[in-house]
Amino acid sequence: MNRSIKTLALLSSLIALPLFSATAAAAAPASDVKNKVVIQVSEGDEAAQSLALNNVANLQQALGMDNVEIEVVAYGPGLSLLTKANKDGQRVESLAVQGVTFSACGNTIKAVTKKTGKEPVLLKGVKVVPGGVVRIMELQQKGYAYVRP
Amino acid sequence: MNRSIKTLALLSSLIALPLFSATAAAAAPASDVKNKVVIQVSEGDEAAQSLALNNVANLQQALGMDNVEIEVVAYGPGLSLLTKANKDGQRVESLAVQGVTFSACGNTIKAVTKKTGKEPVLLKGVKVVPGGVVRIMELQQKGYAYVRP
Amino acid sequence: MNRSIKTLALLSSLIALPLFSATAAAAAPASDVKNKVVIQVSEGDEAAQSLALNNVANLQQALGMDNVEIEVVAYGPGLSLLTKANKDGQRVESLAVQGVTFSACGNTIKAVTKKTGKEPVLLKGVKVVPGGVVRIMELQQKGYAYVRP
Repeated sequence: MNRSIKTLALLSSLIALPLFSATAAAAAPASDVKNKVVIQVSEGDEAAQSLALNNVANLQQALGMDNVEIEVVAYGPGLSLLTKANKDGQRVESLAVQGVTFSACGNTIKAVTKKTGKEPVLLKGVKVVPGGVVRIMELQQKGYAYVRP
Repeated sequence: MNRSIKTLALLSSLIALPLFSATAAAAAPASDVKNKVVIQVSEGDEAAQSLALNNVANLQQALGMDNVEIEVVAYGPGLSLLTKANKDGQRVESLAVQGVTFSACGNTIKAVTKKTGKEPVLLKGVKVVPGGVVRIMELQQKGYAYVRP
Repeated sequence: MNRSIKTLALLSSLIALPLFSATAAAAAPASDVKNKVVIQVSEGDEAAQSLALNNVANLQQALGMDNVEIEVVAYGPGLSLLTKANKDGQRVESLAVQGVTFSACGNTIKAVTKKTGKEPVLLKGVKVVPGGVVRIMELQQKGYAYVRP
């Protein structure tokens, strides 16, 4: 190995670290190719809740079920979308089977339980998150678009 | 060409590709200098729809019409903002002339047409997008801020 | 210095500029480690306004008061959250002391003043921003997640 080759090797190793870290950091958003949407449901109004499920269906139809990650986060009066109280519950359960994530706010569940004396019964496939608003923030930080129908 | 120069050339070509792709990817957001806002109208309520148009006017006044791209996306009950049924229709048409984009949800138009038997007549300057929610997602992916009045 | 070393030095200097600018640009989002949320209040409805303050409390409890920056922006009918007309005003003032930012829309204040003939009296700790919607856009541009309760 001659001197210039050695220098090359050194330079190359010095360059490598920042270069690859820059590439990695800059490339990160590229992994977000998949479309991601968080749909907030915080109203008890049946029409608004129904519109939210229509939004889910439209996203799936337009993009293809495998090309979009949808998470519906329900809190406050919106929690009823995800409980047995919802007449349209079967629609939620069916979408959950298809891979749509339904997240019920743990804070709201606690508050309802305290107020009514009994815990709301969630539909099949519904997950509980500690806090609905925190979840919505986290999803946006991960590149999810936000929609509040 | 001696051996080390050849190595240099090789190293240089190996570096070039990831380097420039990193630069390009990192630089992309820099082109988003212009302010961009998507305003969602999904309510039929006249007061809410009027507030949405006030929001447009306030953005234009504060930033200057040439310094902000505004797209109003109407879907569900909000579609009425963009049809002849809207008493304030002239305000929409006037803003459209000024460069504000008004996008009517194609899915909603189909649903209304199916339900009522006649297609809603859109105001002048209103565009149709295949799906309102998909459009809202896409705009956020392009750096648009989201406002739902 | 032989020829290949010179070439190395030249190559190195050519690489350095785009490399570091790429690193800097890619690293920029890393400073946004702190959680940031803008909460929009544009409804006069007391239940909706109360839900907004619950959202603030839940964010603080979940993340720790020092780990989240919250700005509540009130405009249109939502302005009443931040005026003496609000029965829950003490709750707003208490959260303001804790570091939550409450921003009242200057455009709305002007409109209300013009309409009613007297300027609404804001609660302690409330700031005035020129325009609520512009503020909401700016915060999202700075990486704030958006929530409209």
